[in-house]
Amino acid sequence: MKAGWIGLGNMGLPMARNLLKAGHEVLAHNRTRSRAESLQAEGGKVAATPAEAATAPILATMVADDQALEEIIFGSGKVLETLPRGAIHVSMSTISVALSRRLAAAHAKAGQVYVSAPVFGRPEAAMAAKLFVVACGPPEAVRACQPLFDAVGQRTFVMSEDAPVANVIKLTGNFLIASTIESFGEAFALVRKYGVEPKQFLDLLTSSLFSAPVHKTYGTLIAEDKYQPVGFKVPLGLKDVRLVLAAAESASVPLPLANLIHDRFVTLMANGMQDSDWATIARLAAENAGLKPMG
Amino acid sequence: MKAGWIGLGNMGLPMARNLLKAGHEVLAHNRTRSRAESLQAEGGKVAATPAEAATAPILATMVADDQALEEIIFGSGKVLETLPRGAIHVSMSTISVALSRRLAAAHAKAGQVYVSAPVFGRPEAAMAAKLFVVACGPPEAVRACQPLFDAVGQRTFVMSEDAPVANVIKLTGNFLIASTIESFGEAFALVRKYGVEPKQFLDLLTSSLFSAPVHKTYGTLIAEDKYQPVGFKVPLGLKDVRLVLAAAESASVPLPLANLIHDRFVTLMANGMQDSDWATIARLAAENAGLKPMG
Repeated sequence: MKAGWIGLGNMGLPMARNLLKAGHEVLAHNRTRSRAESLQAEGGKVAATPAEAATAPILATMVADDQALEEIIFGSGKVLETLPRGAIHVSMSTISVALSRRLAAAHAKAGQVYVSAPVFGRPEAAMAAKLFVVACGPPEAVRACQPLFDAVGQRTFVMSEDAPVANVIKLTGNFLIASTIESFGEAFALVRKYGVEPKQFLDLLTSSLFSAPVHKTYGTLIAEDKYQPVGFKVPLGLKDVRLVLAAAESASVPLPLANLIHDRFVTLMANGMQDSDWATIARLAAENAGLKPMG
Repeated sequence: MKAGWIGLGNMGLPMARNLLKAGHEVLAHNRTRSRAESLQAEGGKVAATPAEAATAPILATMVADDQALEEIIFGSGKVLETLPRGAIHVSMSTISVALSRRLAAAHAKAGQVYVSAPVFGRPEAAMAAKLFVVACGPPEAVRACQPLFDAVGQRTFVMSEDAPVANVIKLTGNFLIASTIESFGEAFALVRKYGVEPKQFLDLLTSSLFSAPVHKTYGTLIAEDKYQPVGFKVPLGLKDVRLVLAAAESASVPLPLANLIHDRFVTLMANGMQDSDWATIARLAAENAGLKPMG
């Protein structure tokens, strides 16, 4: 497969690298050109502009937020003008349901095809090609993207022919992760105040009812009260919960727990924690209980 | 081992039965005598009163709440007066941290030994001897109870020499289960409003980051929007979140998510749902979003 790739951040770079490893041609663009050049040793080609990357029959985008993607597709990036008729834009970023809906309409109007395929997994999972891909869009186009999904992920879930549904699912999944962090944060603060050793409590949880990857990954950070390395920063966590609340409001779904979590992220922002991992919301429960950092 | 057993409800009856199956002598008392008699075919002996059950060197109690246990130990049950010096009371009920603290002191004063050993698992797990036991108390006494724990559970976690810590851990675990129910309730309400098939969404969750028993057990109830059979009733869920909040307040730990869940249970009580399973709090998120029951 020949694929254009836009966005080589913490997630995009290892994903594009895995695409190359799987034997595909990759024409990569990144705002900071040196990150695209870093793929040349593995056979990647550098696209000077987003429009140049959009000359491929499949263009994948993996960028930070709505604003970045809007600029690339509708703004100075000129992808909408450049992408050939019949070519596929597969959007893998975590963006709003509203933007995904707008992209589906705009690409359709331009005779192009839009697939939404956000992923679950932190940068370590991206490096190991162990992401989970949620793919929605026209079935034929989703099938055409499958080699790309196979190169970056361990499993693809095809959930709907309506592309924006993938974004609803991705945002809902991130809400469930944040909920786990919040609940573990409160639970560990409580047992610590009663003298329980946090790692022993984590062993109890993960050996019994709470044995999922989400419990082990975030439980370890919380039990050690150590939120390094930073895999997913606070402002991205805030963005995602804001987007899930927007998607929920537009479908008339009250989400009291998501609102509580939104306030947690706002609290971190107010306290200068914007460079911390989003799991740091768990530290708020400990701090509110008068516990000093263990680190 | 010769054990007295008080309390033969949904949980206590299968636990006492498993104790008999493992070859122990069981002297069982229940307020409704017929439930104790139902153990006779398997070799169980009936104790007419709590005090009679307390003639054994180890007495296990598995009752509904603080009030029931107080009545048995301190009130008309007269166990505190009857239990021999050096004998062990192992309390397996989900009770308050405050009552557990009071029991530890009272038994010590009477020259008796108190072990706190609440369990995780629904009645199905009790029947299958697959409970998880959290045991705290004097180490020698905990060791003496181990054959009993082995007969009813799949694993015992010995967490502290301070007996009431076991109750903190049990209540915190139930809070984490209720948090999972609440977060899944909100998540499923949202994706349903976007046309996602709930079982397909559950498959995605349990095949990726959310693969723990707590996700599968409660996710299945929520995806099917069917809360039968009733394993754990709403008033018991309300009691446990009230007790976790009390334990948290007495140790100065704010728990915003536990407060949210407390309100969910209060809402169910206000709407005549006291005979429903506690997982029904998930239906509130769906109802608030205008979704009709699927069942």
